[in-house]
Amino acid sequence: MSSIKHPHVITCKAAVAWGAGEPLMMEQVDVSPPQPMEIRIKVVCTSLCRSDITAWQSHAIFPRIFGHEASGVVESVGEGVIEFQEGDHVLTVFTGECMKCRQCKSGKSNICEALGLERRGVMHSDHKTRFSINGKPIFHYCAVSSFSEYTVVHSGCAVKVSPLAPLDKICLLSCGVAAGLGAAWNVANISKGSTVVIFGLGTVGLSVAQGAKLRGASRIIGVDTNPKKGEKAKAFGITEFLDPNHSDQPIQQVIKHITGGGADYSFECIGDTGMITTALQSCCDGWGMTVTLGVPKVNPEMKAHYSLFLTGRTLKGSLFGGWKPKSDLPSLVDMYIKKETPCQGPKTLFTDTWCQ
Amino acid sequence: MSSIKHPHVITCKAAVAWGAGEPLMMEQVDVSPPQPMEIRIKVVCTSLCRSDITAWQSHAIFPRIFGHEASGVVESVGEGVIEFQEGDHVLTVFTGECMKCRQCKSGKSNICEALGLERRGVMHSDHKTRFSINGKPIFHYCAVSSFSEYTVVHSGCAVKVSPLAPLDKICLLSCGVAAGLGAAWNVANISKGSTVVIFGLGTVGLSVAQGAKLRGASRIIGVDTNPKKGEKAKAFGITEFLDPNHSDQPIQQVIKHITGGGADYSFECIGDTGMITTALQSCCDGWGMTVTLGVPKVNPEMKAHYSLFLTGRTLKGSLFGGWKPKSDLPSLVDMYIKKETPCQGPKTLFTDTWCQ
Repeated sequence: MSSIKHPHVITCKAAVAWGAGEPLMMEQVDVSPPQPMEIRIKVVCTSLCRSDITAWQSHAIFPRIFGHEASGVVESVGEGVIEFQEGDHVLTVFTGECMKCRQCKSGKSNICEALGLERRGVMHSDHKTRFSINGKPIFHYCAVSSFSEYTVVHSGCAVKVSPLAPLDKICLLSCGVAAGLGAAWNVANISKGSTVVIFGLGTVGLSVAQGAKLRGASRIIGVDTNPKKGEKAKAFGITEFLDPNHSDQPIQQVIKHITGGGADYSFECIGDTGMITTALQSCCDGWGMTVTLGVPKVNPEMKAHYSLFLTGRTLKGSLFGGWKPKSDLPSLVDMYIKKETPCQGPKTLFTDTWCQ
Repeated sequence: MSSIKHPHVITCKAAVAWGAGEPLMMEQVDVSPPQPMEIRIKVVCTSLCRSDITAWQSHAIFPRIFGHEASGVVESVGEGVIEFQEGDHVLTVFTGECMKCRQCKSGKSNICEALGLERRGVMHSDHKTRFSINGKPIFHYCAVSSFSEYTVVHSGCAVKVSPLAPLDKICLLSCGVAAGLGAAWNVANISKGSTVVIFGLGTVGLSVAQGAKLRGASRIIGVDTNPKKGEKAKAFGITEFLDPNHSDQPIQQVIKHITGGGADYSFECIGDTGMITTALQSCCDGWGMTVTLGVPKVNPEMKAHYSLFLTGRTLKGSLFGGWKPKSDLPSLVDMYIKKETPCQGPKTLFTDTWCQ
């Protein structure tokens, strides 16, 4: 599948996006060796996240290799890297952890100042790419670019995990599943017996549901316009399913009615800023909390009537579920390996549901 | 000043607003006796809050008696009232505490479902007024209407306080000062050594400053377009003053620069939804929290770019600083009487600064 053309350059297959919304083309790309503090990874598994599609449809940086949710094995390491060596199993992360900046050292943030959300399509260190075709640079995406057999990432944007963990199973902990679980556990800090509403039952929304279930939420109301998701979502903890297209009333009114005034928590997992008001209105006065996780597909501006806040609501953002990648992901992986969760014993495996 | 025309009706002076933005007229009004669970209060002190002006300029309910921040003495009580008796010293509150609803019993909210923010200008019980002139009803405001020598309020919208407390001093604890202190203490829960930015240095903003100071905030940056407030604000704990009209850069950029990435907390105390984005941008990534306290004068819709949340910010609303009126105000008054604060000993009196 791949051949080493030069001791330092790997030529391999990658799915390249040449323009916004254009079909990805399988191409032979040259992958440069890792520069100082970088590692080159053989990608074993990668997922397609909605953010990849959003960026593919809208961003202006092309040609580009998308993909940011992946597991793999370290192929080589750049100068100065002591944390990794060839053969290490890793998860990639779209937002890194330098462990040195104000944010990383704060103990209360995962928004690394040095290796945070990289959107310009180049490496953090020299603002250049490690991919090329016939010498023409191919841009990165979210510091990962996993739609390639090999990729180069900053060593701060990968996490070493136990080799006992099956890479196909833990791949989703690289983004979607971790984002949902963390939003429920770290950001909202869902309490036992509470009522939760989740807008959008994709990977992230269903992971919020699973996180809410493991925290002992008494009602987990899933909202989606795709009725097929309603049945599937039950396996993830959804206790009630609502399809706004099959409701006579605005969905927030239905939710307020069935919850006796609104839920304790609501999660916007669609990536639609237009849903923020609905999510806030679905929460109760006093202590209702809305967590926004989605990256909007169209309009980046959120709007909400001030009275939703004056009556005690909170709106919180969540990036990667608040997890610090290096500090926290290994223990999530270990939790998977042990096939245990704090709440429900050995038979509940929060990622198995995804991977079957 | 007043005379009892009938055993049950008091005729007294009141400042009546006959129309939006029209000058208040001193009129003789009839004040009905308190109905069941209501009390009639002789108003001793009342303040003018910005919300009175906003409602006077914009609301459609007239004629009306404004004023909602007041102290007084109970003149008579309605049927069923056992909490109060004639002569009790009270503070009025624009949002009540029934102590029975889901919100009151939650232990985490002051948004009473039964006696919450009353905006229709009538009493909670029978949706009628207790004021009239020649039989024509005069509407209430915020369940208080203290621009009258006598007023009738629901017994859940008044708080009995120690008769040792001077009514002229504690009057502002009925709204503005309590709102600011509570936003700092209860809603934001400001931590020692943190950095705070306050937009708008009126009563509420300066009370936030005082609350932040008493919590040991290391920097308290006040922002106002009135330069005269800069000097006065120092007495309330402001350590730096910024006037946006005298800045070459947008004020949020100045704040980000001088704080090395943004403050820990920002407070919107102007009542301008257009400032929400500025307040959010003035906070740091990761854990920055913006608290909105102001009632907007014009546009009720808040707008903000989603990325401000994705990078870890929180937006919280604060009504009356999160205080439960009956449960919490008496201890604030006691704190005043003892002339002590938790942080700074007997010489700091958080309301004396206001009342001198």
